Amino acid sequence: MEINKIILIGAGNVATHLAIALKNAGFSIVQVYSRDIVNAEVLAGMVEASAIDNLKQMDVTSDMYILSVSDGAIETIAHEMPLVKGVVVHTAGSVPMEVLNRFNLYGVFYPFQTFTKDKELDFKKVPVLIEGNISHSKNVIIEVAQHISTRVQKANGEHRKALHIAAVFACNFVNHLYVLADDLLEKQGMEFSLLEPLISETTRKALSIKPVHAQTGPARRNDKQVIQLHQESLNGETFHHDIYALISESIIRTYETERNSERN
Amino acid sequence: MEINKIILIGAGNVATHLAIALKNAGFSIVQVYSRDIVNAEVLAGMVEASAIDNLKQMDVTSDMYILSVSDGAIETIAHEMPLVKGVVVHTAGSVPMEVLNRFNLYGVFYPFQTFTKDKELDFKKVPVLIEGNISHSKNVIIEVAQHISTRVQKANGEHRKALHIAAVFACNFVNHLYVLADDLLEKQGMEFSLLEPLISETTRKALSIKPVHAQTGPARRNDKQVIQLHQESLNGETFHHDIYALISESIIRTYETERNSERN
Repeated sequence: MEINKIILIGAGNVATHLAIALKNAGFSIVQVYSRDIVNAEVLAGMVEASAIDNLKQMDVTSDMYILSVSDGAIETIAHEMPLVKGVVVHTAGSVPMEVLNRFNLYGVFYPFQTFTKDKELDFKKVPVLIEGNISHSKNVIIEVAQHISTRVQKANGEHRKALHIAAVFACNFVNHLYVLADDLLEKQGMEFSLLEPLISETTRKALSIKPVHAQTGPARRNDKQVIQLHQESLNGETFHHDIYALISESIIRTYETERNSERN
Repeated sequence: MEINKIILIGAGNVATHLAIALKNAGFSIVQVYSRDIVNAEVLAGMVEASAIDNLKQMDVTSDMYILSVSDGAIETIAHEMPLVKGVVVHTAGSVPMEVLNRFNLYGVFYPFQTFTKDKELDFKKVPVLIEGNISHSKNVIIEVAQHISTRVQKANGEHRKALHIAAVFACNFVNHLYVLADDLLEKQGMEFSLLEPLISETTRKALSIKPVHAQTGPARRNDKQVIQLHQESLNGETFHHDIYALISESIIRTYETERNSERN
């Protein structure tokens, strides 16, 4: 198989990191499409591609078309694209592969990482979860993915959805808990960096033993006195208070059986 | 000031890490007390101390007494202890210093880290938050603390409470979100380690820029379609579902003003 020409549809964070990694791996990025030609030009300039803002200008002879746009825009753009012969993929966790089924060859190329536009990223360690409608699509996608990552694995729509939701919990929601913690410290004139050793150790521990065995804190001990004290001092702030109550309850329930058997 | 003799009341995680760090810094750990003599003996053996399980056996000539027991037990033990002349401190985030006010010299020695019994820890980087009833107590506590940590700072009860609650959010609750994520992956036969690059990047980012600026994900974008899709697939599992809904709502609210002004 000789795969060379790739087109990026989208010029956001994921598209940018992907385009750079693919370019560095030796692929030709032929075109970068964005509704906003300025965005297309910025990324195109970085990977020696042409910038386009009209789907009718799309080169139809490329090997792969990577749709890396917001979830809601994937289906629309897929329907406005010319009926290309190469493999068309999207990069979304929560969108079924089938939204691309007007093409003969299609699939999913889901890089499982959070991307920051201005920060370079070692793509080699990023898990890439792939799916293809037929084995030829799958083979093309795997080949491209293995050029940029050492962690390529197959995952169907159900797997991908579970992964995406897991990532929302372990990444987006975790960051929001950091925001809430930072709020509390800021009100007392303290720095978020005080939490650094504790955050690092928590993360290290959860990744080295199963998180369920790494749990500590008042709710893990079902220490109702501390929990009540904390909740009282959070009373004014609705989300802090409600999130404290709900997650504590969830922790208490998780270890209920264990606590009961310890007691007996 | 010559501070040398220290007594540990408690033989759990915090007591163990503290005793070892203090011993390594050159202090004499005279006694280790635990209700359970076996636990006292284990720790005493590590730091060349005597083990006791009776508070009447406590040496009354030591310079510092560190009460490192469960929050609920601090006050009781403080009242059963002999009226020693040295500085009596507890190590709890959420307990007021004043529970120790039957002593002349007392205060708080709060190491702000999560401790795992079998894992060695570099105490030097652990913030130690201290408080003392009068300046003499404060000076003794600071001197001892500075022997084991480079990050000693004063913090009153309000500061400490805020820090403890912040730690519950950024550490205990974060770990629980990892537990929920692991659950979801396990049900699909996938490994928690798939999340490793993403978790590391999330943590790195939150510590390098303010967490509120590091937020990503469907709720940050107020992407109702993805949020609804996720919630539907979590329906059966109450806590997963409720936590997803509540934290998403909290994120949406946090960025409401910003989104509105982007729109205008």
